[in-house]
Amino acid sequence: MPTIQDIENAYERIRPFIHRTSVLTNASLNESSGAELFFKCENFQKAGSFKIRGATNTVLQLTQKELDCGIATASSGNHGAALSMAVRNRGGKTKVVMPNNTPKIKVDNVERNGGEIIWCEPAQKSRELVLKELLAETGAVLVHPYNDDRIIAGQGTAALELLEDYPDLDTIVSPVSGGGLLSGTLCSSKEMKKEILVYGAEPAEADDAYRSLQLGEIQVNQTTNTICDGLRAQIGSVTFPIIKEKVDGIIIVTENEIINSMRMIWERMKIIIEPSSTITLAAILKRKELFKGQKVGLILSGGNVDLTKLPF
Amino acid sequence: MPTIQDIENAYERIRPFIHRTSVLTNASLNESSGAELFFKCENFQKAGSFKIRGATNTVLQLTQKELDCGIATASSGNHGAALSMAVRNRGGKTKVVMPNNTPKIKVDNVERNGGEIIWCEPAQKSRELVLKELLAETGAVLVHPYNDDRIIAGQGTAALELLEDYPDLDTIVSPVSGGGLLSGTLCSSKEMKKEILVYGAEPAEADDAYRSLQLGEIQVNQTTNTICDGLRAQIGSVTFPIIKEKVDGIIIVTENEIINSMRMIWERMKIIIEPSSTITLAAILKRKELFKGQKVGLILSGGNVDLTKLPF
Repeated sequence: MPTIQDIENAYERIRPFIHRTSVLTNASLNESSGAELFFKCENFQKAGSFKIRGATNTVLQLTQKELDCGIATASSGNHGAALSMAVRNRGGKTKVVMPNNTPKIKVDNVERNGGEIIWCEPAQKSRELVLKELLAETGAVLVHPYNDDRIIAGQGTAALELLEDYPDLDTIVSPVSGGGLLSGTLCSSKEMKKEILVYGAEPAEADDAYRSLQLGEIQVNQTTNTICDGLRAQIGSVTFPIIKEKVDGIIIVTENEIINSMRMIWERMKIIIEPSSTITLAAILKRKELFKGQKVGLILSGGNVDLTKLPF
Repeated sequence: MPTIQDIENAYERIRPFIHRTSVLTNASLNESSGAELFFKCENFQKAGSFKIRGATNTVLQLTQKELDCGIATASSGNHGAALSMAVRNRGGKTKVVMPNNTPKIKVDNVERNGGEIIWCEPAQKSRELVLKELLAETGAVLVHPYNDDRIIAGQGTAALELLEDYPDLDTIVSPVSGGGLLSGTLCSSKEMKKEILVYGAEPAEADDAYRSLQLGEIQVNQTTNTICDGLRAQIGSVTFPIIKEKVDGIIIVTENEIINSMRMIWERMKIIIEPSSTITLAAILKRKELFKGQKVGLILSGGNVDLTKLPF
């Protein structure tokens, strides 16, 4: 489990390669939620999501020999693009195993950053199989999207910046998928401020983290039939223990709640964020009693949306 | 014609009621344009556009007696909403004459801010007629959307903030419709920095300002068949002389160029802005040779877009 020192080291390491993203507020959404909301805008981040933080932190720690073997990963898109960018910054090459239902904007984003795409079926099993074959055939070095302490430490720097900017936050809400962002957020924020509460927000249609937490051990997703294309991954063996130990709860929301919150943010804040990020607002609106009167940080994880396929 | 002192006074007056909006940059759009671009984000402004600046500056100078008569205007939407908000802040009421093809989000925005809508046909003549009848019947006080020195001085505060933040800009590009924003921008920026260049950007489908400038006197729009619903108004008798005296040129662009630039900004900057604002980038991309290597400020005038009717 990354320590706060690991996360501070990660921040020093990645700083020249990332944006320190803005934190926005919105009077109208404060009114709708009954809380004071602080939106950490990782949609404005390089390559369009927070993923560049963990990817950069990991890639900068690879040896030249590892880089020369080529880098590989499996990703629904944002990690693939971020990793491709981080590897290219060091002069290397990346192969990305990607589900064949990935939105075009995320495919383009990987290719624009120099990544090569290897297609797989949407199911987790197909991802794993295709990746395993790729690693065996090419000898490439795997950089996992979340199940890796270096990735977790990198993702934890988003909450670190947020709490540096707004030290009086009471609560932080982060999306949860494989668990890299949520576990990183827990590792940084709970060390920086002991009394802070941290919740995960998860689609009911891909609720493995919620059920895993309830039962105390890892459960698999029974569906991944959610508009949140960034939240279809399976909670990891490295991330889950951190979440289990530290999280204050996981809030699950329906597809309609996610779409409604997306529209609210787009219309009122005039920013473009993914459904996988708007889920944080959906969770707050669903469980208003948990957040009433509090200062709440929301990590808006990314902004890579296919504009020709909006849900409204 | 407002002096720089008028604009500074306006700024002091309206400051408590507006946002000082952020200025964003984007490496990828710099690369596409060959210039260094600074986007003044009035889409994040109160009521969703720069219009609150001029409306507030005007309303704060009305007498209580004038307010008690009720306030009226004709507007494609953004001025109507802004005026309704500014008038409500002083406890008054506003009637807004609005074309019946106005996007729903702009209609809702007027109503949410307490304005009452009076419908007219899209043509300028219908607007004028309905407004004239309204004023005669109700005795309401007109706050014109642009043909008024108080409005122009208010709109000039956007460029004032922009040049305070980035004094080394070489050029500013502003949309032009009735001419309030462009003439205000000219009045502030040319006084703050003598050598600055200022261009207007106008749809070819509503090119009255461009033709008026060429012929040296006001011409009327022959069509207003543009996606830029905020740029269908007619250049004014107060705004045109300022533009004629001070502007360095008006660049007209096609509907396709506007839509392409909109998609570029949405996808790369992750912000929601109106077609009426993206036209500034379209103008720069069309006339790259004018802007090559320069530091260019773009006034992104507003973000009120109907998300169910996107052109892509």
